[in-house]
Amino acid sequence: MKLNALSERWDAEVYIKCEQFQPIGAFKIRGASNFALQLPEGSKALVTHSSGNHAQAVAYMGQRLGIPAHVVMPSNSNKKKIQNAKKWGATVHLCEPTFESRVSTAAALAEEFNAVIIPPFDHEWIVEGQATCAMEILYDLPEVDIIAAPLGGGGLLAGTTLAAHHFSSKAKVIGAEPANAADGYEGLEKGERITSFTPNTVADGLRTTVGEVPFEVLKDHEVEVLLAEEEDILPWMKLIWDYSKTLIEPSCAVPFAAMDRHKERWKGKQIAIIVTGGNVDIDQLF
Amino acid sequence: MKLNALSERWDAEVYIKCEQFQPIGAFKIRGASNFALQLPEGSKALVTHSSGNHAQAVAYMGQRLGIPAHVVMPSNSNKKKIQNAKKWGATVHLCEPTFESRVSTAAALAEEFNAVIIPPFDHEWIVEGQATCAMEILYDLPEVDIIAAPLGGGGLLAGTTLAAHHFSSKAKVIGAEPANAADGYEGLEKGERITSFTPNTVADGLRTTVGEVPFEVLKDHEVEVLLAEEEDILPWMKLIWDYSKTLIEPSCAVPFAAMDRHKERWKGKQIAIIVTGGNVDIDQLF
Repeated sequence: MKLNALSERWDAEVYIKCEQFQPIGAFKIRGASNFALQLPEGSKALVTHSSGNHAQAVAYMGQRLGIPAHVVMPSNSNKKKIQNAKKWGATVHLCEPTFESRVSTAAALAEEFNAVIIPPFDHEWIVEGQATCAMEILYDLPEVDIIAAPLGGGGLLAGTTLAAHHFSSKAKVIGAEPANAADGYEGLEKGERITSFTPNTVADGLRTTVGEVPFEVLKDHEVEVLLAEEEDILPWMKLIWDYSKTLIEPSCAVPFAAMDRHKERWKGKQIAIIVTGGNVDIDQLF
Repeated sequence: MKLNALSERWDAEVYIKCEQFQPIGAFKIRGASNFALQLPEGSKALVTHSSGNHAQAVAYMGQRLGIPAHVVMPSNSNKKKIQNAKKWGATVHLCEPTFESRVSTAAALAEEFNAVIIPPFDHEWIVEGQATCAMEILYDLPEVDIIAAPLGGGGLLAGTTLAAHHFSSKAKVIGAEPANAADGYEGLEKGERITSFTPNTVADGLRTTVGEVPFEVLKDHEVEVLLAEEEDILPWMKLIWDYSKTLIEPSCAVPFAAMDRHKERWKGKQIAIIVTGGNVDIDQLF
């Protein structure tokens, strides 16, 4: 979708890729479906642990493939997110709200069903699945100059990087992180992945550290990461609501907020920004 | 756009027609453009008075046709709406915040430029323009059973009625009004247009009385109007934000809120609901 108002503001041609219109309201379905489709025939279960959009993506794939999905969620998860996973037919296993409990509960289920755990981002199959998003952008805009995406676990940005490399001779990929959750930016500066940090940002989808597999892709391709100031994120979310008349999550506002601080760089360019999802809890937000 | 969640809720096949994606963020461009395109060649000005989406529609058409647009707006209009009209290149004439002042200021401009005033709804050309919305719905869904739209001034609902009559042998049209602004409902019950009332509804686009031209169309075709309870309107707005991941104005929630109270009637039907616009002032709303 072309954003005329933003195009004028940056003197550029700016499009958004609307992943909020995916069946689960977010891009996560791409990686989860690619992973699930690689599993051997006769698989008895899809297993994962997640408190967010990935849980819904695995639940949705279970329903589509007719394979029971078992989703481990911390007992303090948002009730609506638990409900959503159940809506797609998943069995939700509540566990203690610790990472250890999540991992051990999922591991026990994986053993019980002789299944592998579907990870949210740190796996080649997930990265490959997320790559289809930029691939589609390049079908529509073969001459695009810049493809931008937020950087959280890195699955989407790494997939975007690989797709741009394979399907375009000129598209430059730009990642965007909140300045208050800049583990990816700092890790790429140092050439070494940062594995523990304390994020403090409203962009809840970007509070994770970058995974090993995505990090190597971003490092190899020297992907540039721009930072968004925390105070710019929610105002940009609302601005994009107004510009696009679509709902975007706080995490999706990060590339806009980060890029607007460098708007002289985008003049005359054709730009596609991936809007990763629209699962906003309106009442909680305001 | 198909709404899966609402389709499940009503056991029907429910689509929305997304007028929030029009260049001015609302359907009003349809009627205004049809009116402007009927004007004789060499017209020197487009003149209107409005404090809302119609002002933007006339301003936009002025820019597209290369004819200066003169928009009379009350001095107490929302600053953003004044800004928006200027954005499309219109000359904004602020007047006293009374209906008399609006009319006399616009009349003086119309005389100065030998122009006619483009009305927001009460004219055949406006009704014809708004009819293109349902015409497009019937291109996409030729077998649609029900087309629903909100009822304010009546231009859209009358146009929808005429389009359904001409382009479909079975589509039934349903209008929806806030119970707190039910002049259309009451007028059609009595068979006589109500010309003064005191609306008290959050659905700001529906606070006008139905115009003469639209009223006759609705009366002739015996269009059914359903009422939305005031307390249902904002919750339904947020629900449709969630279901569609698009922004809709409070007025657009009225058909959903009204129809949900009769959901047994929609079972098995193919339904299209016109979402009239997405010009929401987020900060004012929350």
